[in-house]
Amino acid sequence: MGKKVITFGEIMLRLSTPDYARIIQSTHFDATYGGGEANVAVSLAQLGIGAAHVTRFPDNELGKSATNLLRKYGVDTQHIRYGGDRLGIYFLETGASVRASKVIYDRSHSAFAGLEPDMIDWDEVFAGADWFHWTGITPAISAGAAACCAKAIDVANRKGLTVSADINYRKNLWQYGKTAGEVMPGLIAGCDIIVSGKGDARDILGITAKKPEGNELASVYSQIMERFPKVRKILNTTRGSVSASHNTLSGMLWNGREMLETQTYEMNPIIDRIGGGDAFMAGFIYGQLAYGDDQKALDFGVAASVLKHTIREDANLATVEEVEALLAGNTSGRLVR
Amino acid sequence: MGKKVITFGEIMLRLSTPDYARIIQSTHFDATYGGGEANVAVSLAQLGIGAAHVTRFPDNELGKSATNLLRKYGVDTQHIRYGGDRLGIYFLETGASVRASKVIYDRSHSAFAGLEPDMIDWDEVFAGADWFHWTGITPAISAGAAACCAKAIDVANRKGLTVSADINYRKNLWQYGKTAGEVMPGLIAGCDIIVSGKGDARDILGITAKKPEGNELASVYSQIMERFPKVRKILNTTRGSVSASHNTLSGMLWNGREMLETQTYEMNPIIDRIGGGDAFMAGFIYGQLAYGDDQKALDFGVAASVLKHTIREDANLATVEEVEALLAGNTSGRLVR
Amino acid sequence: MGKKVITFGEIMLRLSTPDYARIIQSTHFDATYGGGEANVAVSLAQLGIGAAHVTRFPDNELGKSATNLLRKYGVDTQHIRYGGDRLGIYFLETGASVRASKVIYDRSHSAFAGLEPDMIDWDEVFAGADWFHWTGITPAISAGAAACCAKAIDVANRKGLTVSADINYRKNLWQYGKTAGEVMPGLIAGCDIIVSGKGDARDILGITAKKPEGNELASVYSQIMERFPKVRKILNTTRGSVSASHNTLSGMLWNGREMLETQTYEMNPIIDRIGGGDAFMAGFIYGQLAYGDDQKALDFGVAASVLKHTIREDANLATVEEVEALLAGNTSGRLVR
Amino acid sequence: MGKKVITFGEIMLRLSTPDYARIIQSTHFDATYGGGEANVAVSLAQLGIGAAHVTRFPDNELGKSATNLLRKYGVDTQHIRYGGDRLGIYFLETGASVRASKVIYDRSHSAFAGLEPDMIDWDEVFAGADWFHWTGITPAISAGAAACCAKAIDVANRKGLTVSADINYRKNLWQYGKTAGEVMPGLIAGCDIIVSGKGDARDILGITAKKPEGNELASVYSQIMERFPKVRKILNTTRGSVSASHNTLSGMLWNGREMLETQTYEMNPIIDRIGGGDAFMAGFIYGQLAYGDDQKALDFGVAASVLKHTIREDANLATVEEVEALLAGNTSGRLVR
Amino acid sequence: MGKKVITFGEIMLRLSTPDYARIIQSTHFDATYGGGEANVAVSLAQLGIGAAHVTRFPDNELGKSATNLLRKYGVDTQHIRYGGDRLGIYFLETGASVRASKVIYDRSHSAFAGLEPDMIDWDEVFAGADWFHWTGITPAISAGAAACCAKAIDVANRKGLTVSADINYRKNLWQYGKTAGEVMPGLIAGCDIIVSGKGDARDILGITAKKPEGNELASVYSQIMERFPKVRKILNTTRGSVSASHNTLSGMLWNGREMLETQTYEMNPIIDRIGGGDAFMAGFIYGQLAYGDDQKALDFGVAASVLKHTIREDANLATVEEVEALLAGNTSGRLVR
Amino acid sequence: MGKKVITFGEIMLRLSTPDYARIIQSTHFDATYGGGEANVAVSLAQLGIGAAHVTRFPDNELGKSATNLLRKYGVDTQHIRYGGDRLGIYFLETGASVRASKVIYDRSHSAFAGLEPDMIDWDEVFAGADWFHWTGITPAISAGAAACCAKAIDVANRKGLTVSADINYRKNLWQYGKTAGEVMPGLIAGCDIIVSGKGDARDILGITAKKPEGNELASVYSQIMERFPKVRKILNTTRGSVSASHNTLSGMLWNGREMLETQTYEMNPIIDRIGGGDAFMAGFIYGQLAYGDDQKALDFGVAASVLKHTIREDANLATVEEVEALLAGNTSGRLVR
Repeated sequence: MGKKVITFGEIMLRLSTPDYARIIQSTHFDATYGGGEANVAVSLAQLGIGAAHVTRFPDNELGKSATNLLRKYGVDTQHIRYGGDRLGIYFLETGASVRASKVIYDRSHSAFAGLEPDMIDWDEVFAGADWFHWTGITPAISAGAAACCAKAIDVANRKGLTVSADINYRKNLWQYGKTAGEVMPGLIAGCDIIVSGKGDARDILGITAKKPEGNELASVYSQIMERFPKVRKILNTTRGSVSASHNTLSGMLWNGREMLETQTYEMNPIIDRIGGGDAFMAGFIYGQLAYGDDQKALDFGVAASVLKHTIREDANLATVEEVEALLAGNTSGRLVR
Repeated sequence: MGKKVITFGEIMLRLSTPDYARIIQSTHFDATYGGGEANVAVSLAQLGIGAAHVTRFPDNELGKSATNLLRKYGVDTQHIRYGGDRLGIYFLETGASVRASKVIYDRSHSAFAGLEPDMIDWDEVFAGADWFHWTGITPAISAGAAACCAKAIDVANRKGLTVSADINYRKNLWQYGKTAGEVMPGLIAGCDIIVSGKGDARDILGITAKKPEGNELASVYSQIMERFPKVRKILNTTRGSVSASHNTLSGMLWNGREMLETQTYEMNPIIDRIGGGDAFMAGFIYGQLAYGDDQKALDFGVAASVLKHTIREDANLATVEEVEALLAGNTSGRLVR
Repeated sequence: MGKKVITFGEIMLRLSTPDYARIIQSTHFDATYGGGEANVAVSLAQLGIGAAHVTRFPDNELGKSATNLLRKYGVDTQHIRYGGDRLGIYFLETGASVRASKVIYDRSHSAFAGLEPDMIDWDEVFAGADWFHWTGITPAISAGAAACCAKAIDVANRKGLTVSADINYRKNLWQYGKTAGEVMPGLIAGCDIIVSGKGDARDILGITAKKPEGNELASVYSQIMERFPKVRKILNTTRGSVSASHNTLSGMLWNGREMLETQTYEMNPIIDRIGGGDAFMAGFIYGQLAYGDDQKALDFGVAASVLKHTIREDANLATVEEVEALLAGNTSGRLVR
Repeated sequence: MGKKVITFGEIMLRLSTPDYARIIQSTHFDATYGGGEANVAVSLAQLGIGAAHVTRFPDNELGKSATNLLRKYGVDTQHIRYGGDRLGIYFLETGASVRASKVIYDRSHSAFAGLEPDMIDWDEVFAGADWFHWTGITPAISAGAAACCAKAIDVANRKGLTVSADINYRKNLWQYGKTAGEVMPGLIAGCDIIVSGKGDARDILGITAKKPEGNELASVYSQIMERFPKVRKILNTTRGSVSASHNTLSGMLWNGREMLETQTYEMNPIIDRIGGGDAFMAGFIYGQLAYGDDQKALDFGVAASVLKHTIREDANLATVEEVEALLAGNTSGRLVR
Repeated sequence: MGKKVITFGEIMLRLSTPDYARIIQSTHFDATYGGGEANVAVSLAQLGIGAAHVTRFPDNELGKSATNLLRKYGVDTQHIRYGGDRLGIYFLETGASVRASKVIYDRSHSAFAGLEPDMIDWDEVFAGADWFHWTGITPAISAGAAACCAKAIDVANRKGLTVSADINYRKNLWQYGKTAGEVMPGLIAGCDIIVSGKGDARDILGITAKKPEGNELASVYSQIMERFPKVRKILNTTRGSVSASHNTLSGMLWNGREMLETQTYEMNPIIDRIGGGDAFMAGFIYGQLAYGDDQKALDFGVAASVLKHTIREDANLATVEEVEALLAGNTSGRLVR
Repeated sequence: MGKKVITFGEIMLRLSTPDYARIIQSTHFDATYGGGEANVAVSLAQLGIGAAHVTRFPDNELGKSATNLLRKYGVDTQHIRYGGDRLGIYFLETGASVRASKVIYDRSHSAFAGLEPDMIDWDEVFAGADWFHWTGITPAISAGAAACCAKAIDVANRKGLTVSADINYRKNLWQYGKTAGEVMPGLIAGCDIIVSGKGDARDILGITAKKPEGNELASVYSQIMERFPKVRKILNTTRGSVSASHNTLSGMLWNGREMLETQTYEMNPIIDRIGGGDAFMAGFIYGQLAYGDDQKALDFGVAASVLKHTIREDANLATVEEVEALLAGNTSGRLVR
């Protein structure tokens, strides 16, 4: 398609117990590498969109392995920087039925947290690119990462890229002396499209629904758009949880005038729910670039995310054909010969 | 029981990704050997019926391994021929939820495709046998395989065996210059019992339901019987697909007068759906030989097939006791101590 | 909490096929060690209750491994005796959907069966202990084991411990010349709390519901209490089986006046149902010691058992926080970060 | 070749730790089935000799699995009897370097130990057979097994089969009230060929080398032949142990006149040394049947045994071509394309 | 370093049995993708040299997986073509001690064999490149592959690239109607550097050592250079085989005047010997590009190959630092912290 | 034996690649927990000596798992403290032949590094204890850990325990502002027995051999004893490295008068060399406590260490019987039945 998307964010070593084992039972871990923004890049590459990821890795075999994983799936890794102490790690125990999945983060002091703004030449990174995507995790990690992100958004805006963000509030991060409320508004101001739930809007921006008003989410989204005039689309998914093995998923998008919605999908059983939101974002970006239609892009994003829940590891490996088959109503899972 | 069934068809090396992995994620494959007709033989042997399988393997460790698998499960392998270039292979990616299972065939130029009619002495093969079973896959593979199959049916008829076939139309096969419509009628004419769906009847025989008529399938089956007077029973299963993990299954049989039906079973989760139809056929043959009653045989076939969906690899390893317990209404899966 | 519970019973090597494989398909077995009473001890230790298990192991690497497993999970193993010929074994084939799980026992002639009453100094074992738990499996194994159990109950009563038993009738045991009806009443007479189903009451005590009476179970339990005045609480769970993968569970307790009941939980998919009853008992004991309230203890026991069904191997590794979250209504399995 | 060999003996479930793990470290076991005499049968079948094994299995999935393993490798299993309580088990911890491999037997009370002489119709078993092979393990297991063995030797002699035995003294067996010295001489008397070390001769027959005499082994073997005139060949291997990973092996055969010897092979690394003696025996039997030459048969036996040490599980899966290549001096292990 | 090497050749799916298992024992295969020329590219990329591989894959998940593997290790895959029927496969059984490793090829009818000269624009491929490497396997596969190779050599010569070839004679290939002797000389004529053993020279070129002459190999190499004046360096390795687990390796290079030689390395144990020659070639190319010194390049090539034998899968993953440490005499394998 | 040893030090999560895989190849890691001093405790517990380990773990599932591993092997864990941020991790790539094993440490900011002296009540810890062991790694980690160690040595001396240390200089540690030369002498001064190589003495104490003198090591050790009068025994092992797979090992001990030495053992193949020094220390402590004889203790230590090299994971699981068998000359690795 000739389009190119740049993503920026931390990648961690993911160590997950196999076969629903508890961490205290497990004598080995399955290893892969993932992170919200990189998952978007990998997914876009599977969908045929050019994708480059910007991050920082320690200069050791773990950093090399993370680079290799991105390369394997066709992501351009030439802008990755090497240095710093360690690769962040997260441990994942996959739940089932009434037992929730559990994540233990061990990501402090990472190479990425040690990023400084002058380490990345964003003009070079964005040469020939169409879209820049970041998430609220990045500015939460360290002052340096936040400053890098701010600089990237500035340059992206200057060069005319579409800027999207999943503003994603994680309260356990934000340990470096600033709050999300202090940092995020300046970054959101440079975005065209954001993913935000009601909780994120409340926790980051202090925005809650005005009452009495028909649709709470529409109220929240309207206020966001009022405050951030560059933002022209806000979207999100709604997850229903029957159990750790059985969820439902639908999506909605506020374009400033109306709330677009998708059908609700059953996801049962869930093979791996990590990265479901990133798959949604990647699918939506694909849809915007391929169709230029909000409803189609939203539908594509949700269907992509539903397929992601059937695929192990962080990133969505579904193809355009597979997402389109699901969109065409093929939820039956008949054998493809 | 003293009964002996002969099956004839290709066996492939099956390479499947473990644990719902995608092929592009997988660094190893689980290996087994299977094929529609051989699956019937293995299943019959587990049910206590004498079974011999006729096929051709390359004279190497893969052919030896395939023979060994049949022997392991008690199938007589003395009539297998060795020679030719390669063993056909199929790659299987097992799906889940909305993601369908996917099969990649790599079966061209196989030892089986190189079969010539004079390689097998069917008089010797059928000595002491009661039943011959083949499927529509075999004549689709090569002219030689089709000719072998025709010869086998002739000899079986001459020696008074019951002949059954799953006429199973696979449009991606039939590459050797003949169509199913040219080859299959001559073979079906020699059968007593066939498995056929509406699609198979249409694609192979050009038969569709006459309208207006109560039961479409009955109309199709009546026309088939009219055209092939030796055929006295036509049967099939109906699969409902909630998702790749959750299907329903029921069976029906037309005896020329009425349409027998079975209950509908829930299959959730499905462990392995490959070979479900072969398990049905084997169960039905068992039922015919053990009970001599169409309804009982049909019920047994469907219950056997339902159990197959809980068993990994191609062939059904359920025992008579297990099928009978399911027929007796024990779908609850209580612990057997 | 400072409370200490003593459990007594056999532990076996558990050899289970991985990934729903049938035993006849499997070329390796997952190995762990478990037994009804030891499962209670392990579960209590995870819940923060002091627990010691008394048993007898052969003096070899298998006995050592079983001891190590108990130690790993914090169970006091100082009272374990070593000697005799072998460790009992059970083979487990985990079913799915309509295929039931299957257990093959190979437990005869075990070190535990060779127990003699003078091998264990119960006064020493019970020093500082609050509770003694046994099950109906132990007296079924051998005359020596039954005699040990009787002696333990006597000493426990003399020292004022609470005595509980899951009276659990297993008809395939009881091979040493005595019947459950001859042995069990004397042991039940020393109990404060028992777990019993209607079947156990009938098979062991010959007690069935008197008619006409409102609640059959209440009738049975009343008769038990009449016959065994020391017993002041009788409890049990009710399991509904949709399939081997999907069960429901609820619990009830008769306190001599009223029948307490819990909500009914869905368990789908079941990861491992072995030890569900032991998890219930451990949860109930925890609840008694922590809350001193029958309804809370019953609720805790059932919720603990439901969580157990999501955890592989025999013993429940759920924590108090996890059980309480489930009791608080969190059945949704949302990701815990 | 048209020759048929009958073997008779117990088969156990072998549970081995993977990858040099100690039993106390291992959370799973690799499972296979093996026994000295059955290993001979499997090996002969790979070498193209007809082989049938006679044994007794419990009538459960473990007995079925053991039968299936024999069938898989082409051994005739029609004479196997089903009944009794359990399948014997042995646990194997494979050593390396200075750490020896370790075996824990759990074989008492097996189905095989419960054999009674009238359970097997040896006239039927030996119909069309040329050779009968047994080992000193069988009469050590139980009085019934010893009686079966005696009967088999009698019938074999009556029918003119060659009878061979590995007289193999295992002091931990022989628990049923008779000593090897009481039972074995009567059985050895019916043999044509035996495998015996100096230790076996001393422990079973009380025969030691007369001094002064040149070759101790020749002295022992001469005395054995004097005492058992039917025995016309006595053979054995000599193993040199550098470490658990590195052994040497050579063979010798006394034909009553001279001591034939083979070259000494280096075996480094050893993959699996269980069944090395059985592979030797099978190779020797093959050599006798194929070449009718003692030196060639001895050479073939030793080379077969050396190859066995590179093959995991109990039985030798080497082919005639592979053994002959080794005999031809190809110890270099060059890649075979 | 800024240098770029182009390699051209077939890549196959490699299916190997784990842990020294025989193919007939194995129920799963480890899967990777490799081929002589691609192995050179992967190895060069690890050594920091730009490398692009040219080949043809089927347009399915297997072709995609092979591409992904190359990308993972940093090889440029933009010139790969997609189409044709299947990916060639080879099965590998890794030997140990006296048991040789065994390869079964199943590579006929591959996508690569279907290559036609006009499918690849070599001018585009060679833009900015310094070196072109091919092997004698490629022209042996099909007339189309041979024609492609000829065209590539022509263009490479025209554009001034260094051309190297491992002329590697595989007699089981060359099935398409031409012999190596007919095709290879024309291709070798365009080379600057070739790898050839005495056997290759004899089988392909009919060149044998003239006698009496001091060094047989020097005689052969001199004759080759006489016949192919463009060839200015001929090199090879000598492998000594103690067993399948223990080899020795040294290298030699004829520069037209003298025979350079390296030290002889012990390789014990060998983890994976596939690709040893490719690692040698890659190391030699690295050495030529990095040092411009024949002795240093030869030394580097042999040391790289020795390290390859410790690394599983086809391609050498050793780094420059590791090879240099070995060259510096560090064969001791001390722990690197 | 009634003796009790206290060890103190950090434990890390060890993540190792299976089967000689490189980190960049590996998609899973084997997980265990180990650390120099804890390895001594585990080994002592296997040898029948009471052992308690003091450390600090994060209060999460990883800390719990590390505690569980110690408990599993019988180490007293009651003095472990919980708190802080993370568990240190090390990644291990096991080498073979000429490829060295490689360790990547990721241990900064660990819970152990956050230790403060008042977190541990050493009077309580040492109650009833006979021996205290620490290593030079602990004071290198943080000022707090060094202060804890100093306090422990003081209290141990006051209470009359034997104090031993492996003074082990790791230059990559010591990042908190003090050098080993500043901190270690004060700690060594409180020791009775130390393990030190020539390098450690030079790097930590600035002590080198005086010349000319017969035995360099004796010169170094004499100077150490002169400087630290409490130290009465200094010991060490000498490792010869043929390759990563083949080492030799011997030991020596200076008692102030003479240099005791042991035989030199071959270790081939090495299964896991991590913890070899800890196994030596544990064996030596066992020997001191069991025999009270320096030569016997030294011999036992070296033999224990040699066995450790055959055992995977950090800690030695050899028993007294196994070490004694090796000491008795049984290096042959014959099968133990």
